[in-house]
Amino acid sequence: MFIIEGIKAITEFFGSAYRLHSIYHTGNLPANFEDTGTNIKLFEVNQTELERISTLQTPQDMLALVHMPQQQHIAADALRGQFSLLLDGIQDPGNLGTIIRTADWFGFDKIICSANTVEAYNPKTVQATMGSLARMEIFYTDLAALIRSANLPVYGALLDGESIYDIPWGKEGLVVLGNEGQGISAELRSFVSRAVTIPRKGGAESLNVAISAAIFCSELTRHMH
Amino acid sequence: MFIIEGIKAITEFFGSAYRLHSIYHTGNLPANFEDTGTNIKLFEVNQTELERISTLQTPQDMLALVHMPQQQHIAADALRGQFSLLLDGIQDPGNLGTIIRTADWFGFDKIICSANTVEAYNPKTVQATMGSLARMEIFYTDLAALIRSANLPVYGALLDGESIYDIPWGKEGLVVLGNEGQGISAELRSFVSRAVTIPRKGGAESLNVAISAAIFCSELTRHMH
Repeated sequence: MFIIEGIKAITEFFGSAYRLHSIYHTGNLPANFEDTGTNIKLFEVNQTELERISTLQTPQDMLALVHMPQQQHIAADALRGQFSLLLDGIQDPGNLGTIIRTADWFGFDKIICSANTVEAYNPKTVQATMGSLARMEIFYTDLAALIRSANLPVYGALLDGESIYDIPWGKEGLVVLGNEGQGISAELRSFVSRAVTIPRKGGAESLNVAISAAIFCSELTRHMH
Repeated sequence: MFIIEGIKAITEFFGSAYRLHSIYHTGNLPANFEDTGTNIKLFEVNQTELERISTLQTPQDMLALVHMPQQQHIAADALRGQFSLLLDGIQDPGNLGTIIRTADWFGFDKIICSANTVEAYNPKTVQATMGSLARMEIFYTDLAALIRSANLPVYGALLDGESIYDIPWGKEGLVVLGNEGQGISAELRSFVSRAVTIPRKGGAESLNVAISAAIFCSELTRHMH
């Protein structure tokens, strides 16, 4: 199970594909929380107890335990007719959380991660998603095998490549974003059919990976627009 | 003075507009560091001492103290013929640092902050800039007064407005990004001549402000392209 904190996040998880296990609150439970299904256990705790179980420095009003979804297999067919984000070895929980939040804003409903990408149910990731995790399906899989079986155009976010502003995006494809320090792994790089770069005008050596992901999401949205 | 950490960041500050005061290293000082001007004091410290003065959990090889630049007045004329980012009450040091790094990538050379925006020389901000602070001039000023005297188009990043993909950007203007929770303050909102929104397709309530800033930078770059 994993922890979500605050009434806002908990509300987002009601009615999502995730299954809530229990809620720990300090007594101010909204009336509609009592009706949300007989299977969610409600526990009243005091402020000290809440502080002890919270992962935040300043705990919110309540927290909940949510069942981790069973790892589903992602079929290559589920990727057709759309663009999907593939994360190759993202290490920072905050970056992953921000990518999930941003992808949700732009209407993506899944994120596909390499097995060595940070855990999406890490408290820091969950917090950074600001509730968007509730609407996002997260897959962990062998990206090379998935790419091979999907047989779709593979766009790699790289420092050298064609300008993202000039890419003739088709109507489907895979967008690969790499690790914070190393970028896309050598193995996956060999599958990239189109190296795409966000043109650099100034002196920064690189962009934060969540920033790159956002610019890819925005360009794809603009293209579909 | 403020702290910068790691040989990479220190190297970026050599030859910048910032003035280094001193470097604390554990003995592996590159030869070129000895010639970088007689005014930088060099101190050899041991690992324990470095850990004690570092703001990082895992200190890097060295750190330096840098003089805070004297607060300069930004004249409205310095804003003409270009686009500038105005930050209205950004509170999270990591967000400000990421905005500085991203703006540097896209070739901006200054960021203009409201007086209540978080300190750019905060160790967390400096770290998140990944050296880009060295190339960026940061102004703290009364944004309302600056906007009034500049008399330029004011684009506000808002949840309701025209799609960012349809804006006929001219060749100059001010882009205002607001606080993480509250957005642009009511006072500044009255100066916004064009409300601009990043179209939402999914369920997320908002975007992280550094993500919004990046998408604005990218759209402006694309427009100038």
